[in-house]
Amino acid sequence: MRFASYRLIELEILSTNKAFGGVQGVYSHASAETKTDMSFAVFVPKHQKGAKLPVLWYLSGLTCTHANVMDKGEYRRLANELGLIIICPDTSPRGDNIPDDKGYDMGQGAGFYVDATEQPWATNFRMRSYIEQELPALIAQEFPADMNRQAIFGHSMGGHGALTIALRNPGRFKSVSAFAPIVAPLQCPWGHKALGGYLGAEQSAWREYDACALIDDGARMKEILVDQGTADQFLEEQLKPNLLIEACNKADIPLTFNMREGYDHSYFTISTFMDDHLRWHAERL
Amino acid sequence: MRFASYRLIELEILSTNKAFGGVQGVYSHASAETKTDMSFAVFVPKHQKGAKLPVLWYLSGLTCTHANVMDKGEYRRLANELGLIIICPDTSPRGDNIPDDKGYDMGQGAGFYVDATEQPWATNFRMRSYIEQELPALIAQEFPADMNRQAIFGHSMGGHGALTIALRNPGRFKSVSAFAPIVAPLQCPWGHKALGGYLGAEQSAWREYDACALIDDGARMKEILVDQGTADQFLEEQLKPNLLIEACNKADIPLTFNMREGYDHSYFTISTFMDDHLRWHAERL
Repeated sequence: MRFASYRLIELEILSTNKAFGGVQGVYSHASAETKTDMSFAVFVPKHQKGAKLPVLWYLSGLTCTHANVMDKGEYRRLANELGLIIICPDTSPRGDNIPDDKGYDMGQGAGFYVDATEQPWATNFRMRSYIEQELPALIAQEFPADMNRQAIFGHSMGGHGALTIALRNPGRFKSVSAFAPIVAPLQCPWGHKALGGYLGAEQSAWREYDACALIDDGARMKEILVDQGTADQFLEEQLKPNLLIEACNKADIPLTFNMREGYDHSYFTISTFMDDHLRWHAERL
Repeated sequence: MRFASYRLIELEILSTNKAFGGVQGVYSHASAETKTDMSFAVFVPKHQKGAKLPVLWYLSGLTCTHANVMDKGEYRRLANELGLIIICPDTSPRGDNIPDDKGYDMGQGAGFYVDATEQPWATNFRMRSYIEQELPALIAQEFPADMNRQAIFGHSMGGHGALTIALRNPGRFKSVSAFAPIVAPLQCPWGHKALGGYLGAEQSAWREYDACALIDDGARMKEILVDQGTADQFLEEQLKPNLLIEACNKADIPLTFNMREGYDHSYFTISTFMDDHLRWHAERL
């Protein structure tokens, strides 16, 4: 695959810890897209010297940094067994001089994986290009990654990110899955606030950031896996998984959709079903 | 088993989340021992109604609350499979009006599982009685726990707690293990500061809070499991596992001691070897 051209800056290692036979690292770099320092976590499993390993991207939800899933996701045991590199980016640019919103659902910690076009966001909030272009180029350069074997998943806003990025880049990702994703920003309050703020009032510009709209407009994936808890407090108002079920039905996209009795929106749910998702991706990588 | 007599106060439920088929809860109660509200976490695995389950106590290290191991310990998957209740207490009383020390290694977050005799600590810092007497009585009353099947483990200061509590109560615990424990407070700076502060300068009073001294003085366990990382920054100055190896050798206590190449003092190490410890205890419960 080809990347846009970035002047690659040396990575700063914030921490590395041996875990489950591999290494969990946290890194920082100066991002050309966001014009800020960006942190991210990478788990590299035990591997033979010179080996190139498949890459699984995990995109986090509202309020999260790389650290939430690194601390609570419980992915390292099986990722090491399966030989998967796990990449956990941040969810937005951050900093005292970076625009923000008083709510938790926009601004810092809530980049929604878009390239913003509206002010004051457009300068820094370029998470689409950061995740689709800049960070992959850095990963390809700095880690033992086989960029021809990539998959992507995420939680909530990060599930939205995973679905939309995969649907827009079907050749790049062998598989996609999500925990409790936002499937239709066009049809929920989180989406209206964030996409309205980042992209402006014209909703036609939102469609490439809406999994259901992308599918309606012809985007395809071979298949999709989603796990959703029945006790999720955001289920009815924000997540609306039936919209994805309908869109996939209409488009003949095989969707494995698991409703999980009693599970909520937290990392307790994500960690419970993490192994299922890792195996799903490993089988397709 | 019998407990000291406590007037049992109703538990306040701070949170419950379904996880791995069981329920991870966080609770608070008014402690008669510490004269503060005390929080703790309990994981109850999936079980038949009316069943009584074995109990595994996890004691945390310096600076920790119940939350560190709950978030990062990765114990729920296997604890649910093995049918173990996991109890994670706090490491000290806490509060604005509770004595503290400027260091991280004494005072709040650093109770060292002792009943303090010196002021200003003696009124509240009664973590020995809290863990040995008050909290077990509460657990027996409020959870589906078989208190005839208890085991105990912990990390660092909590490994010290697990070893000393097990050695002083050999009939109560079927098994004991530790990650990177403080094995001899009499012989390390952490121990001298904390036990000196909590118990006074007379070192004979410290011996019941020192695993190696307890063994030298005749305390016995059937066997002990310890995992220790070679990259642990506290290994040489504070942890000194050779003192435990020597004490166990001399006393004919079978010690399974695993030096783990490249692992440090963090929860990345604990989570890596969590499964081994859970299986160790389950086999003995």
